[in-house]
Amino acid sequence: MAPLIQWKPLASLATPPDGLLLSPERQIPTVGGAVFHAIKQTSQGFTGFGEAYFSLVDAGSVRDWKRHTRMTLNLVVPIGRIAFLLAKQDGERWSDFHYAVLGPASYSRLTVSPRWFMTFVGLGPAQSILMNVADLAYDPEEAERLPAGVGPQVPGIEQLMVGEGTVAI
Amino acid sequence: MAPLIQWKPLASLATPPDGLLLSPERQIPTVGGAVFHAIKQTSQGFTGFGEAYFSLVDAGSVRDWKRHTRMTLNLVVPIGRIAFLLAKQDGERWSDFHYAVLGPASYSRLTVSPRWFMTFVGLGPAQSILMNVADLAYDPEEAERLPAGVGPQVPGIEQLMVGEGTVAI
Repeated sequence: MAPLIQWKPLASLATPPDGLLLSPERQIPTVGGAVFHAIKQTSQGFTGFGEAYFSLVDAGSVRDWKRHTRMTLNLVVPIGRIAFLLAKQDGERWSDFHYAVLGPASYSRLTVSPRWFMTFVGLGPAQSILMNVADLAYDPEEAERLPAGVGPQVPGIEQLMVGEGTVAI
Repeated sequence: MAPLIQWKPLASLATPPDGLLLSPERQIPTVGGAVFHAIKQTSQGFTGFGEAYFSLVDAGSVRDWKRHTRMTLNLVVPIGRIAFLLAKQDGERWSDFHYAVLGPASYSRLTVSPRWFMTFVGLGPAQSILMNVADLAYDPEEAERLPAGVGPQVPGIEQLMVGEGTVAI
């Protein structure tokens, strides 16, 4: 039987674990549509600019677990709602299970340092959009991606939608 | 009577005017949602990283004309469709009328150097999203904004929707 995993919401922690950071960002009401801050050169968690790109994330889609060896990610979700799951691997042992839900309703930037494994799940209701401001340009040699279905079991969308509560599976 | 303005589509020019650049960017099909490149440190038109932010743009909304004195903008539109209008002002005289329509269907990055006046119009059909990767953090002292209704007359949405044709008003 798979071990029980307690996913801890990052937003609930007074002190985030080393290498993860959740930073509130401003949304500024503007005539014709709001302005959403994403990241500044002076932001906590900014480690340099290599590339910015978007990922469209279909509701219900789950990405494979992936770990970067050198890249720091800075993630914001201006449209939709995405759950990010983070964990560490040491040999066969997985530990440090955390998650964060990003979207305009709880608008924050998630910084993910190298060595953290991450996956993410589109919570919908429709397509979500994720922007990553990374300190390196994309390099397939720099990331380790696990095959689909390998890695810690991802909670179901119903569990992730609870949001602020601890998700146990 | 206001003079006739011929807005020239940037995409049709073999050589763009000094300080404007339209760069095609890649969209990469991915299971669960496409990845859209935005800008890399090595991209043509990249002049440094100061801040990244989003503007949501309601269909039909028109922003006031604005000119930056030091900031270079790099603009991409991953959702929706936005028309950008660009012009120069020398004393009372306006010149160099150009425009570009950005969106996932004609996916490109627009670089706007300082001294160009710009406005933009949401073409819909619903809310569009614009990301700006700017080489300076936002500074209200660094931009000149004209009051609503001042500056070159903005073509109607029906005219802008023509897209690749010259818009004369």
